[in-house]
Amino acid sequence: MQFDRIIKNGTIVTASDTFVADVGIIGGKIAALANDLTDSADIIDASGLYVMPGGIDSHVHIAQPSGDGIVMADDFESGTRSAAMGGNTSILSFCMQEKGDSLRHSLKVYHDKADGECHIDVAFHMIVTDPTPAVLGQELPALVEDGYTSFKVFMTYENLRLRDDEILNTLDAAKNTGALVMVHCENEDAIRFLIGQHEANGEFSAKSHATTRPIAAEREATHRALSLAEIVDTPIVIVHVSNREAMEEMERARVRGSKVIGETCPQYLMLTADDLDQNEMEGAKFVCSPPPRDKASQDACWDGLQRGVFDLFSSDHCPFRFDDPEGKLIEKGKKSFRWIPNGIPGVATRLPILFSEGVQKGRIDLNRFVALTATNHAKLYGMYPQKGTIAIGSDADIALWDPEKNVTITNDLLAQGCDYTPYEGLEVTGWPVLTMVRGKTVVKDGELSGEKGYGKYLARQKSNLIA
Amino acid sequence: MQFDRIIKNGTIVTASDTFVADVGIIGGKIAALANDLTDSADIIDASGLYVMPGGIDSHVHIAQPSGDGIVMADDFESGTRSAAMGGNTSILSFCMQEKGDSLRHSLKVYHDKADGECHIDVAFHMIVTDPTPAVLGQELPALVEDGYTSFKVFMTYENLRLRDDEILNTLDAAKNTGALVMVHCENEDAIRFLIGQHEANGEFSAKSHATTRPIAAEREATHRALSLAEIVDTPIVIVHVSNREAMEEMERARVRGSKVIGETCPQYLMLTADDLDQNEMEGAKFVCSPPPRDKASQDACWDGLQRGVFDLFSSDHCPFRFDDPEGKLIEKGKKSFRWIPNGIPGVATRLPILFSEGVQKGRIDLNRFVALTATNHAKLYGMYPQKGTIAIGSDADIALWDPEKNVTITNDLLAQGCDYTPYEGLEVTGWPVLTMVRGKTVVKDGELSGEKGYGKYLARQKSNLIA
Amino acid sequence: MQFDRIIKNGTIVTASDTFVADVGIIGGKIAALANDLTDSADIIDASGLYVMPGGIDSHVHIAQPSGDGIVMADDFESGTRSAAMGGNTSILSFCMQEKGDSLRHSLKVYHDKADGECHIDVAFHMIVTDPTPAVLGQELPALVEDGYTSFKVFMTYENLRLRDDEILNTLDAAKNTGALVMVHCENEDAIRFLIGQHEANGEFSAKSHATTRPIAAEREATHRALSLAEIVDTPIVIVHVSNREAMEEMERARVRGSKVIGETCPQYLMLTADDLDQNEMEGAKFVCSPPPRDKASQDACWDGLQRGVFDLFSSDHCPFRFDDPEGKLIEKGKKSFRWIPNGIPGVATRLPILFSEGVQKGRIDLNRFVALTATNHAKLYGMYPQKGTIAIGSDADIALWDPEKNVTITNDLLAQGCDYTPYEGLEVTGWPVLTMVRGKTVVKDGELSGEKGYGKYLARQKSNLIA
Amino acid sequence: MQFDRIIKNGTIVTASDTFVADVGIIGGKIAALANDLTDSADIIDASGLYVMPGGIDSHVHIAQPSGDGIVMADDFESGTRSAAMGGNTSILSFCMQEKGDSLRHSLKVYHDKADGECHIDVAFHMIVTDPTPAVLGQELPALVEDGYTSFKVFMTYENLRLRDDEILNTLDAAKNTGALVMVHCENEDAIRFLIGQHEANGEFSAKSHATTRPIAAEREATHRALSLAEIVDTPIVIVHVSNREAMEEMERARVRGSKVIGETCPQYLMLTADDLDQNEMEGAKFVCSPPPRDKASQDACWDGLQRGVFDLFSSDHCPFRFDDPEGKLIEKGKKSFRWIPNGIPGVATRLPILFSEGVQKGRIDLNRFVALTATNHAKLYGMYPQKGTIAIGSDADIALWDPEKNVTITNDLLAQGCDYTPYEGLEVTGWPVLTMVRGKTVVKDGELSGEKGYGKYLARQKSNLIA
Repeated sequence: MQFDRIIKNGTIVTASDTFVADVGIIGGKIAALANDLTDSADIIDASGLYVMPGGIDSHVHIAQPSGDGIVMADDFESGTRSAAMGGNTSILSFCMQEKGDSLRHSLKVYHDKADGECHIDVAFHMIVTDPTPAVLGQELPALVEDGYTSFKVFMTYENLRLRDDEILNTLDAAKNTGALVMVHCENEDAIRFLIGQHEANGEFSAKSHATTRPIAAEREATHRALSLAEIVDTPIVIVHVSNREAMEEMERARVRGSKVIGETCPQYLMLTADDLDQNEMEGAKFVCSPPPRDKASQDACWDGLQRGVFDLFSSDHCPFRFDDPEGKLIEKGKKSFRWIPNGIPGVATRLPILFSEGVQKGRIDLNRFVALTATNHAKLYGMYPQKGTIAIGSDADIALWDPEKNVTITNDLLAQGCDYTPYEGLEVTGWPVLTMVRGKTVVKDGELSGEKGYGKYLARQKSNLIA
Repeated sequence: MQFDRIIKNGTIVTASDTFVADVGIIGGKIAALANDLTDSADIIDASGLYVMPGGIDSHVHIAQPSGDGIVMADDFESGTRSAAMGGNTSILSFCMQEKGDSLRHSLKVYHDKADGECHIDVAFHMIVTDPTPAVLGQELPALVEDGYTSFKVFMTYENLRLRDDEILNTLDAAKNTGALVMVHCENEDAIRFLIGQHEANGEFSAKSHATTRPIAAEREATHRALSLAEIVDTPIVIVHVSNREAMEEMERARVRGSKVIGETCPQYLMLTADDLDQNEMEGAKFVCSPPPRDKASQDACWDGLQRGVFDLFSSDHCPFRFDDPEGKLIEKGKKSFRWIPNGIPGVATRLPILFSEGVQKGRIDLNRFVALTATNHAKLYGMYPQKGTIAIGSDADIALWDPEKNVTITNDLLAQGCDYTPYEGLEVTGWPVLTMVRGKTVVKDGELSGEKGYGKYLARQKSNLIA
Repeated sequence: MQFDRIIKNGTIVTASDTFVADVGIIGGKIAALANDLTDSADIIDASGLYVMPGGIDSHVHIAQPSGDGIVMADDFESGTRSAAMGGNTSILSFCMQEKGDSLRHSLKVYHDKADGECHIDVAFHMIVTDPTPAVLGQELPALVEDGYTSFKVFMTYENLRLRDDEILNTLDAAKNTGALVMVHCENEDAIRFLIGQHEANGEFSAKSHATTRPIAAEREATHRALSLAEIVDTPIVIVHVSNREAMEEMERARVRGSKVIGETCPQYLMLTADDLDQNEMEGAKFVCSPPPRDKASQDACWDGLQRGVFDLFSSDHCPFRFDDPEGKLIEKGKKSFRWIPNGIPGVATRLPILFSEGVQKGRIDLNRFVALTATNHAKLYGMYPQKGTIAIGSDADIALWDPEKNVTITNDLLAQGCDYTPYEGLEVTGWPVLTMVRGKTVVKDGELSGEKGYGKYLARQKSNLIA
Repeated sequence: MQFDRIIKNGTIVTASDTFVADVGIIGGKIAALANDLTDSADIIDASGLYVMPGGIDSHVHIAQPSGDGIVMADDFESGTRSAAMGGNTSILSFCMQEKGDSLRHSLKVYHDKADGECHIDVAFHMIVTDPTPAVLGQELPALVEDGYTSFKVFMTYENLRLRDDEILNTLDAAKNTGALVMVHCENEDAIRFLIGQHEANGEFSAKSHATTRPIAAEREATHRALSLAEIVDTPIVIVHVSNREAMEEMERARVRGSKVIGETCPQYLMLTADDLDQNEMEGAKFVCSPPPRDKASQDACWDGLQRGVFDLFSSDHCPFRFDDPEGKLIEKGKKSFRWIPNGIPGVATRLPILFSEGVQKGRIDLNRFVALTATNHAKLYGMYPQKGTIAIGSDADIALWDPEKNVTITNDLLAQGCDYTPYEGLEVTGWPVLTMVRGKTVVKDGELSGEKGYGKYLARQKSNLIA
């Protein structure tokens, strides 16, 4: 066979297997796995490298407004660029419905933002904030049909959160249309109550972000979301789980017979609430929701990655500029932690952190790394087998990893729109030295080699949980 | 000593002890426990009888309106009369705040209803339905000071249920004033969702009452209530628990360090959802919330009474006439189970059922019977040591039980306002043959011997959980 | 009535009630509880004092040989004297069967040791070490008939432990005769394995006692004992539980339907493994089995006392002289922790520690104190209502407590045979100022006022769990 | 490339992926995965078929003596023949040490039995029954070095079971040598106790096999094995788990941080204790240990396969002829269930049952099927990547499955030595139509096409849990 491109002598890693072979690529797809492939004018030597499915980050916020005119730090160009730097070949970004808007309108807004800007492939989850009968009964079925097969609901944030009746109706619409619902589980009323208490006690600094969003508030909402899904009888995804108590809720639900997928993120492995307790606004750099907890919670999340409590490892990339152009963020954030935007960047650091802390430190093996960062995302969100694996017929979305490369993470390396990384100075072993999307190199040795606009929108199938 | 009255030769039972002794009464109070008391003109022979603290039923609805002009079947005269027939010497009835009303106004309404009507002593829990800042910040502290030291909130019923923020504020007010909060735990939104589904499927009969209020809806609300109390850091009482899953939530909360009191009721030991599945409106006689479950849930509730998961055994007496004078109940209830009033009578049958099914069948001992039906209620709700035990200085509130008396329960025996009992035909062994309040016989051998108006209102201390 | 003795104006505390009354005593028994008793020549003023049932310590080792000629530090005279100093009025001591001996013979040995020596009342549990068919089939039924209604088996100690088949047969004999079995739960083989490892690693000091008896070894044996009892279908008592994992095993067994009684001891509330890590042989003063654990385990044991996981609080008094006359203990103990006798003194300090740390610090109430230290022991081990409460007809076994008395514990105060207390220097609030057995004062203000030999042997009924 | 053989147009299934491709085979190994492979003289058309890794059955008893001269029904010729009929390409059979024998001697015996007899590849686990210091200290390290990297211990069967000290030493030897230990978890003493009770009650029939080996006996031993492994700090495999309680023990151990692998078998999905309750000796056909339980346990085992409680699905093939030539089995078995050999055949039916009941009924997906039946076995027992997957460089051990083929299972189809199958008459959908070992067809359409002796012995690497 004649191949457009051959990756030679690498060690191929899938979610179950590890073996040395060459990869032959034709038309952007993987056409052959074999030894001694030779027929190509374009041969990449991958000796000593891992040939892994490019990362799929299924939890990314890009170009999403955050109230009060605060602008998210990444647009689709910078967001997908940074993702590619970090070894990703696809992201699933959120399209947020503004209250009163139709979903179609919201999608148009986000497609317009993304169109022609992306370096890697992109799909959208809808964030449903206004689940009117028209939205649930008419728009959603059509959208699912069109390939928007997952959506997300919030149980926190005053302007986003749905009440239980709205969640029930949304889950029911998902069940009826074959869509999958992701849930951000924190009890908004409990948080508001605690914010009120803290402010009444004169506690305004960033560290109060963590104490006003305690584990009990996350555990409560997690159990509630699981119970509502149990009543509707439909699967759900619990996103960004931060601690053992919430994990236990998921495990209990599974024993009851529910289909539950769990996700955790690097911040719950690497950060703690102590990181928020820093002077001035430095602590604000670690403000995300749920907040990082403590060492025991970090251990719990590692345990969950090992034992299969979690199937997904995502970034929850949600970048805000610390020095935003107009200084609004700092100005308001100094007034009270209440006004610090919730979210930290992470699309570029997700994979190196899990590789270094997980694989290299012996906590998980290579196959589990691939499952957690690519294959499971593709299967769960209806992109498999086009995406998420190295198999005949799949897109040649591949990252070459040098497992021995030592890198000290700095924000400069990440090519992102955000002006900081919470992992500044972290030393990791193992780095993606080449990212290839549909057979074409997008990043090589930290340099962007493609043009924006190469990345395509992905219409999706139904989830493997549902189909 | 000279006694007003002596109870001779009975077997005295307290929450911890069982012993033969005479009881000497002076001024309505217990003045002596000894053998061979003789100095009184009024000696009751209690040979072969148990001399037990009169029952305290801390969960009774009387003269409470139920919407649509439906009248509750018992006023304070009939309600306390029936209670006395069943061996009770005190009840705690609910005073329901109508939305928009002040708590003081509501209290006045209920005091007016009760004043001069009662056969046994009565205290009130407030039902808070409209927790405005004025109610929580000003009225509640004053009421607690005045002896209304407990109140109840609902998580179900469209017109009564509080949202989480309201529950949090109410719990916080309770914490600040030293009051105790009781919670009815069922997720209203889930129930509404399921009612909608059932009706859409043409399911309108009484049995759907049970299937639209599944264990998951109770378990969810129970965990939520416990979590909100954990966040506020104040004790709560979970009332009328019907199944093992809700019990487990309480036990988990206790292991986390929360103070939680659990209550169950006769309907969860004796009835099942199958009882609702009867033709015409017969099933309506068993409609209460949470609904009776199944045999496994009955076993779980017995287990909870034995293991101490529950400290309280109450009736949740909430009587509606099946043949209400205007036929409204039947008329609407036939249209849909949605309109069947939620509640069944039980103030007179609570004690004989637990005695016969519990003590006589070897599931619990006599001391546990007294704790579950009297002493724990008195301690928890601030009436101890005046009420709830047989000890020097306590009110002579005593029931004499013939443990061998066989009785077939019929509604006629119960002297209640309701026109049926869900336990019609049940055979029990053991019956209260004399009920004495503050030294005076109120019921003897099923005959009322006192005058209405003898029963007094009880101002209460703070709960032993809090004081 | 004419009383032999009256205790006036004290606050009487039972396992459920607290009230002010006088106690009238006739013939060593409680004859009246009332106000204003006057007819006696012998009136004790108990104003400001608690009048509580004397402590029953159901887990005491006295005059038991411990191998290698090491002599236990207390004989029945000193052991019961020290017990009385600490507010106890009865103890249950162990009678250990030597392998090859009949139980009758063993009993004769211990009765001979105790006869005429005791200050307070004494009963015996048998320790079964040689459960031959003759022992189980012939001796045990006769002994149970004679009032030896409980016995103990060991899962640890090379010379004492029973294999599973022996435990099963012993439990079965207990079931058939109506006796109750206490189990010391630690996996001997696991401990031997770890001792071998430690010694091979050159670890010989006292602190290795704790690391060679890890929680896993106790949890394992606890679950095994519970499972064997489940298979035989008979109740058991798990003695001296030291940690949460073993507690959880008991709770799981109860949910499965087993009757399980749990006991913990002061050493698991007050000591930790760090106490064993002291230079020379100082650490040996804290060697007991299971070993003290850590702060989290202490908290767990308090939680268990509060939540009812434990019904019994005993001392496991097992005293060895640190400076034994022949120096054997120190000599061998220095060679290896393996040779340090397992056991610490505690019969005199049990009650003041629980009163001060439990009642005075608000962890448990007075009634629970009485239940845990007296009433539950009496009921469980067949001594109720003769012992364990303050009720008409019960023995006047009473301790008067001054709740405000501050005492610094020193070994001198305890009048025991042992030459140290592990609680030397501990400051407590609350102390038993008078101990009365069957109406007669045995200790007053720390002075022995009776004669040895006043204490009697108690034949017992069957356990309330079984009868 | 020129291939020895090509499998065309099949759907390849691995433990993570499913894709259509051709498989090119050279020298018995997989050399290429690609579309449109053509260069071979030997092309198999796999259109419409699944191309799956051949099954690896890691729990098979062959030619093992069973006491009293009873002969196991399969020798290595018939056992491997039947395995191949059922889609397997490797088995791990047991080599049982006779007490007093060296392991080397035992191995020689089994190698002699297997040599030149096998149709598929074979490796051995040692059964350690006599763990002397010489066996553990000298023989085991050498054997592990030689590729016998796993062994099994029994907690049941009078002649095989090890005491706890022996298990600890064996686990320790495993830890020191890098071997993996499998444990059969049932409490022998409890079983003996119950057998004694049953026989004393005149219960001798086969159904008593189930009631004398209750879940409590399996749960107890499971927890004990896990605790011993926790103390030694080494991984273990819990084999043939039959019920939820034992599953929970494994899950609890994992949360404590232990490495635990769980296995279940078809009998726990398809049979119940009722199958043993048949007249004459018919019930004996279902006697295995642990025994089949009930419907709830079946559901639990399915749940465990779905949730990852189990990583292994094996047969525990342990065949005895019902009509053994000399009639001994029936003769003794009729006398008492005690004498019925414990074990049922299943090496040929394992895969079709899981495919039909699991994959076709939607309980598990194809990839999980492959993981549970092949890949996980290969990884766990040190045979990966040579065995257990379809990847470049792996042995071409492949089964072609027709997913739509309907088969009624009869013993005739299975070509085994046993004279019955417990699944006689079971209808399944999906069947292995061709079994290929190292590129050579061994079975095609139910006909044996190879010669005995083609199957080779496999020396193994260390487990992926340990390496």
